[in-house]
Amino acid sequence: MEESFGPFEASATSALVALPTESTIAPLPDPGRPEFDGKALRALLNGPHGDVKDKVWSICSRPEFAYQYDISISDYRRQVLGWLQALADEGLGALGTPAELAGAGDPGGFLAAFGTLGHHDLSLLTKFGVQFGLFVGAVQRLGTAKHHDLVTGALQLDPLGCFAMTETGHGSNVAGLETTATYIPSTGGYEIHTPNPLARKDYIGGAAEHATVAVVFAQLRMGDLGHGIHAFLVPIRTEHGEPASGVAIGDDGAKAGLNGVDNGHLTFDRVRVDGEALLNRFASVDGEGRYSSDITSPNRRFFTTLGTLVGGRVSVASGAVSVAESALTIALRYATRRRQFQTTPGPETSLIDYPSHRQRLLPRLAATYAYHFACAEAVAEYVGLESDAGDTGEARRVFEGRAAGLKAFATWHTMDTVQECREACGGQGYMAINRLGSMRDDVDVFTTFEGDNTVLAQLLAKSLLTEHHSSFEDLTPGRLLRYLRDRVSSFATTNLPVIGSVGGDRTDPEVAGLLLDRRRDLSLEKLAQRIQRRVTDGRDASEAFTEVQSHAVETARAATEAYVYAAMRRANVDDPALSEILDDVSVLYALWRVEEDLGWFLTHGLLTAGGAKAVRSSVATLCDELAPHARHLVDAFGIPDEVLAAPIAL
Amino acid sequence: MEESFGPFEASATSALVALPTESTIAPLPDPGRPEFDGKALRALLNGPHGDVKDKVWSICSRPEFAYQYDISISDYRRQVLGWLQALADEGLGALGTPAELAGAGDPGGFLAAFGTLGHHDLSLLTKFGVQFGLFVGAVQRLGTAKHHDLVTGALQLDPLGCFAMTETGHGSNVAGLETTATYIPSTGGYEIHTPNPLARKDYIGGAAEHATVAVVFAQLRMGDLGHGIHAFLVPIRTEHGEPASGVAIGDDGAKAGLNGVDNGHLTFDRVRVDGEALLNRFASVDGEGRYSSDITSPNRRFFTTLGTLVGGRVSVASGAVSVAESALTIALRYATRRRQFQTTPGPETSLIDYPSHRQRLLPRLAATYAYHFACAEAVAEYVGLESDAGDTGEARRVFEGRAAGLKAFATWHTMDTVQECREACGGQGYMAINRLGSMRDDVDVFTTFEGDNTVLAQLLAKSLLTEHHSSFEDLTPGRLLRYLRDRVSSFATTNLPVIGSVGGDRTDPEVAGLLLDRRRDLSLEKLAQRIQRRVTDGRDASEAFTEVQSHAVETARAATEAYVYAAMRRANVDDPALSEILDDVSVLYALWRVEEDLGWFLTHGLLTAGGAKAVRSSVATLCDELAPHARHLVDAFGIPDEVLAAPIAL
Ligand SMILES: Cc1cc2nc3c(=O)[nH]c(=O)nc-3n(C[C@H](O)[C@H](O)[C@H](O)COP(=O)(O)OP(=O)(O)OC[C@H]3O[C@@H](n4cnc5c(N)ncnc54)[C@H](O)[C@@H]3O)c2cc1C
Ligand SMILES: Cc1cc2nc3c(=O)[nH]c(=O)nc-3n(C[C@H](O)[C@H](O)[C@H](O)COP(=O)(O)OP(=O)(O)OC[C@H]3O[C@@H](n4cnc5c(N)ncnc54)[C@H](O)[C@@H]3O)c2cc1C
Repeated sequence: MEESFGPFEASATSALVALPTESTIAPLPDPGRPEFDGKALRALLNGPHGDVKDKVWSICSRPEFAYQYDISISDYRRQVLGWLQALADEGLGALGTPAELAGAGDPGGFLAAFGTLGHHDLSLLTKFGVQFGLFVGAVQRLGTAKHHDLVTGALQLDPLGCFAMTETGHGSNVAGLETTATYIPSTGGYEIHTPNPLARKDYIGGAAEHATVAVVFAQLRMGDLGHGIHAFLVPIRTEHGEPASGVAIGDDGAKAGLNGVDNGHLTFDRVRVDGEALLNRFASVDGEGRYSSDITSPNRRFFTTLGTLVGGRVSVASGAVSVAESALTIALRYATRRRQFQTTPGPETSLIDYPSHRQRLLPRLAATYAYHFACAEAVAEYVGLESDAGDTGEARRVFEGRAAGLKAFATWHTMDTVQECREACGGQGYMAINRLGSMRDDVDVFTTFEGDNTVLAQLLAKSLLTEHHSSFEDLTPGRLLRYLRDRVSSFATTNLPVIGSVGGDRTDPEVAGLLLDRRRDLSLEKLAQRIQRRVTDGRDASEAFTEVQSHAVETARAATEAYVYAAMRRANVDDPALSEILDDVSVLYALWRVEEDLGWFLTHGLLTAGGAKAVRSSVATLCDELAPHARHLVDAFGIPDEVLAAPIAL
Repeated sequence: MEESFGPFEASATSALVALPTESTIAPLPDPGRPEFDGKALRALLNGPHGDVKDKVWSICSRPEFAYQYDISISDYRRQVLGWLQALADEGLGALGTPAELAGAGDPGGFLAAFGTLGHHDLSLLTKFGVQFGLFVGAVQRLGTAKHHDLVTGALQLDPLGCFAMTETGHGSNVAGLETTATYIPSTGGYEIHTPNPLARKDYIGGAAEHATVAVVFAQLRMGDLGHGIHAFLVPIRTEHGEPASGVAIGDDGAKAGLNGVDNGHLTFDRVRVDGEALLNRFASVDGEGRYSSDITSPNRRFFTTLGTLVGGRVSVASGAVSVAESALTIALRYATRRRQFQTTPGPETSLIDYPSHRQRLLPRLAATYAYHFACAEAVAEYVGLESDAGDTGEARRVFEGRAAGLKAFATWHTMDTVQECREACGGQGYMAINRLGSMRDDVDVFTTFEGDNTVLAQLLAKSLLTEHHSSFEDLTPGRLLRYLRDRVSSFATTNLPVIGSVGGDRTDPEVAGLLLDRRRDLSLEKLAQRIQRRVTDGRDASEAFTEVQSHAVETARAATEAYVYAAMRRANVDDPALSEILDDVSVLYALWRVEEDLGWFLTHGLLTAGGAKAVRSSVATLCDELAPHARHLVDAFGIPDEVLAAPIAL
């Protein structure tokens, strides 16, 4: 047996006979015509904002937008600032701002532009997000008419601003921020102060070099009373670029990635600002020094203030998905070109023809498709909620939870995908010009900023528990569980044989969806029970929740994956051949997620051992069936060559 | 329920009442005295080469070894070369070389030094490995007495060499290399030639700037005959540092990491070398132009030549494990210092007290311990095999497979661990000074070089199939499977209740080990059957193997994890308290691996649903039990502050 297992041995021997002389990296093979309507797929992926995307791609394809490698941090920052200026000049920054404030009033277009920047440089995407999403967004949403001139200027980068929420001591726990804004009755202004070194603002994008004004989140103090977190406009630099009086600015220096962004820290030494500095849409202080707010609950006020972050989370998710698209375009194109080892006599085998290679890349492509559709849907839903300005109700709360989950699991998915693509390209994948390394380094922080993923997943779980609690109030947990179990076990016995019988009747997308839905429901139910049990034992709800937080994270995953799948299924496809392919793509996504969590499905009786095996073999079969379409599926993302840039993929 | 789930809401409200003013990052808490013999643990981890490790740590603690950030590639390369010189001056490079060649004759010490460099800069580790492991190693092992002066010089970096195996077109498939070495009968020398652009040597460490001579792997051609891959010494630079005549040298430029190493490519245009250039230990050409070799099978000769890589694989595995040790030291120290969110009134909760945080870091710490012991054992075994010079038999073949698996799964484990640690440190984890980013970027390529992991895993699977085939020749697959099933099901019913009953009688380490062993055995058996079935259906063995390669990779994982666990269990511990802790650590490792693969255990009847739940809760319980010891467990790695360097961990 020793010498017969090829491919590792085979050609060692054949070398005795004839020397291979032909090149083994062919030019990129012509993928041929797709078996489906390729244009329709492009249009579907582009969604309603195709023209914005085209515009971003075309700007980023300009020669001056070419990537640089081995560039110093200061040069890189300068370059990104120049790029940002070009985007502002082209009006992309103003897309989301209402027309009254000199914007284009197209928040959906703005988010699409942001997401598309994910195909280019993530430092640029981040600078763009800080200026137009966080800074302009905060002034516009948290401020009132008197602040709106600032918005109009900021759309032209005059001023450049920053969003100073996080402190060295408090990132996830925003309510614990320690910076104070003390009301000065004699002037009607405020004194912004950093009470201890860990209360300095930290990691603030733009603070180290470019920004001249900051939206500072601080504890509002009036006399002996604390009113909680409010946002203030604080000049941090003079017109000559020196730190403003009382402001100490530090540079966070080199980072693990995103080095085109000038992150820094800010320390305030009793800095005086006038009364207008308070962004007073949700709370204001009158001439007599009286505090008032339409939102009476401090907690609600806090979360309304933080609501500005929700758009950011949807954007970060779609930016991340774009990174996964780039990485997969590179790795899958390379897989069709690169050959290594002979399995049968003749030319070496293309990587795409190796089952393991397919199983590394195709499920991740399927998931990227699913996240693409889910992000598009979330953008649309966000735009709807925004236009319904006053809405602070149930729909928004549900959406905030969903956006938190989408951000967390989309960014984790992207990290996993980029790394797999890096390794799938072997030594070439490690060369900077092939971009996979910088993609990974840059997108890495997406798991941390705009909310740490583990914390966001718990946020979604809490939101689901709240919903669950209200919609099942009439059912005791025990009755509910029996009810779910009944549905579940009849499902397990009746529907499961369909899974895996690909061929005659391939796995029904509904069955795949049911598996994800059942996991979401049962997982949430069990989470609620675990908490209930602990509360009954005398713990308070917060302690009880903390004890089961790993289960909460898993519930959030289950809910997000079910949602992502459903969103993809909702995408409207006319062409029947395309619809068939997208059925396969979506089922591959769903079954791959099931496969990754088989232990759970089996222990909870949602799959039998036979069903589990069928899931496994379906995943492999779907990879084989989709492999010939892989090139068309990645080409449909439409990333221009200049933006993709990786030589191994062109 | 909405407002009662804390910790996210809790302090928003409390901010109304009192402002937090105390810092939330405490100084690094004193871990107190360990409950076990800490010195004994240090000694156990240091193993037989404690003095070499101390020496490496002490050199790397010198001020001139301090890490630089935002450094250009050329400055970084220069710095690493300086560091390499310091290591050579201190005699570390010569450790592994036999005394006759001016070395210290301590290959175990050499591997320990290499592994310990994994705590410092991986570019330095790689330069060290290229010069003293690959270059010196190849000349010494593949060459004969006439080449040995070169070794003596190279130990002092005169010359600096490189190891030129990979070509742009062929990395994993070494047998497919296309560079030719054509015998010239008139001179008795050879002509080294690159027949096409993809046959250029690529990614070669040292080629871009520093090396003056290369060990070039090329197809030996004599007249019409090809004799396969042989190694040749080829000067690539003149004494003035210019490319040697006929040699074109290119720079691979910026990489995703490891930018202190000058990787480059080499193209040979009919470069003439004399007859001594052939490293002729296993094959030589006499004065009459007659080729001869003691190893008659070309295949065996090929693998003997490649055998030089085995030591490299063991080293790369232990270097990677050191990286995981550094990352965990940073993340776990930070976890005991960093507080975020209040779960109960009073100070915020330390990260280490969050169950999810424990479950992210503790199993990875346990696995790192297990890999640490496995690497130490592999080093010892390698040294034993090496001293038994002539040995090319079964033991070496088995060891080569094991080393391939160890390299693959240790480096994957490290990538996963470093990323988890990066995220576990939040924003701080993304700052370059905390080193997690560069660790990840540098160690990333360990999954690719010295053999791509997916390919190496298949290599191990093939080796296991060979063993399996010979040891079970008398059993038909069907009988074997029934035999395994019987053992397995009696095991499942009799032993499993023990799992999870932590407390009175905690999980027996033997039971944990049995689970991993059974998975290895059954997985291999099923792999053999799958291949058998395909061969019976008419496919050749190589095709059949390729079709089931994903299963082969999983079998390799099962075998490696069982081996790693067993190696840890073999570590000799006297102190009873320490032994108890290490029992917990090893069981956590084993059960975590089982938990990650629960679907497999359930579908194959090795666990019942109840057993699976018990595994899950055991993992959580063990994390809780080990968390208080985490600081002692990472401190025992002994990484000096100057080498660890990350401010958040000091
Ligand atoms: C490059 C970069 C740019 C940034 N830009 C900005 C900016 O422009 N403006 C701004 O305001 N901020 C910015 N940030 C800050 C960012 O939002 C924070 O880093 C992030 O919110 C996480 O906070 P932290 O770093 O304090 O992590 P921590 O909150 O300390 O979290 C550390 C770890 O602890 C875990 N953890 C925390 N709480 C819990 C819990 N309850 N249960 C379980 N685990 C828990 C987390 O999962 C995480 O792994 C930036 C950060 C970076 C790195
Ligand atoms: C920084 C760096 C330093 C290096 N230093 C040196 C050096 O000093 N000297 C030297 O000689 N080399 C060096 N190398 C080369 C290194 O050893 C090769 O990159 C490595 O062997 C992988 O080969 P490849 O890049 O051709 O990848 P490929 O072999 O093309 O592999 C690409 C992908 O295909 C997959 N694949 C390949 N074959 C199969 C199969 N049969 N089945 C399933 N999947 C398969 C692999 O898993 C991989 O993901 C270096 C590389 C790098 C990046």
